[in-house]
Amino acid sequence: MVLRTPLLTVDVVIIHQERIVLVRRANPPFKGYYALPGGFVEIGERTEDAARREAREETGLDVELVKLLGVYSDVDRDPRGHTVSIAYIGRGRGEPLADTDALSVKLFNPNELPKKLAFDHEKILKDALRVIQHHKEEINNATIDAKATDL
Amino acid sequence: MVLRTPLLTVDVVIIHQERIVLVRRANPPFKGYYALPGGFVEIGERTEDAARREAREETGLDVELVKLLGVYSDVDRDPRGHTVSIAYIGRGRGEPLADTDALSVKLFNPNELPKKLAFDHEKILKDALRVIQHHKEEINNATIDAKATDL
Repeated sequence: MVLRTPLLTVDVVIIHQERIVLVRRANPPFKGYYALPGGFVEIGERTEDAARREAREETGLDVELVKLLGVYSDVDRDPRGHTVSIAYIGRGRGEPLADTDALSVKLFNPNELPKKLAFDHEKILKDALRVIQHHKEEINNATIDAKATDL
Repeated sequence: MVLRTPLLTVDVVIIHQERIVLVRRANPPFKGYYALPGGFVEIGERTEDAARREAREETGLDVELVKLLGVYSDVDRDPRGHTVSIAYIGRGRGEPLADTDALSVKLFNPNELPKKLAFDHEKILKDALRVIQHHKEEINNATIDAKATDL
């Protein structure tokens, strides 16, 4: 018997220079839409490591995770099939990648975000902005174990 | 290409009559050890629904989830392979199942827990007890969206 469970992804709400880092998708699904940096977790990789790896690959930033935001598991959130995403809030360090044909990284002011994002990322981002507002001081100052949901 | 990611499970720290509900494992791995109620997430099932289903199947209790505790993804936490668990804190309602040969449900006072649990459940339970202590009032009173990590 081969046991199958939903596919596992990570997404990161990266705060960098007081702005939110989004990437424009070069491929389907949601080609051309902005999305949170993220991707599939590899077997043998902790979710926190997957989040930092995907963030760096897609944005060029080193990301320090500061909080576990939530787990998003609605069945229809990814048109490719049932995918469960672990969402983190992180702080970026360094310089974001320059735009290329295949990749577009953009920093948005929290009050000037795109109206429509890929997947359920509007919902994730909305939850994140609420938490960021509520925990502003801790997120600016804390270095924590991102596995714990409490700062 | 068949994309594979770690297998996804849920575990629930159930508070019932001010005690913690554990189940004794009838099968390997960790046969005979106490564990948190939990199990694999099905494709097409939200993680919160999986947590409530597994809790009811294993303990007989209806469980109201009150908080997302954390995501546990250490590579060696399950000897069967890389398994990532979403852990929730919940409150139990009803009567726990009676013991049978195949199943043993037991309520423990938080200061009289078994020293050695299955998987990394000692760590999960330790984290939970810290959070429960810290959020005692909210956990007793709140009815919340368990997706959000903030009460």
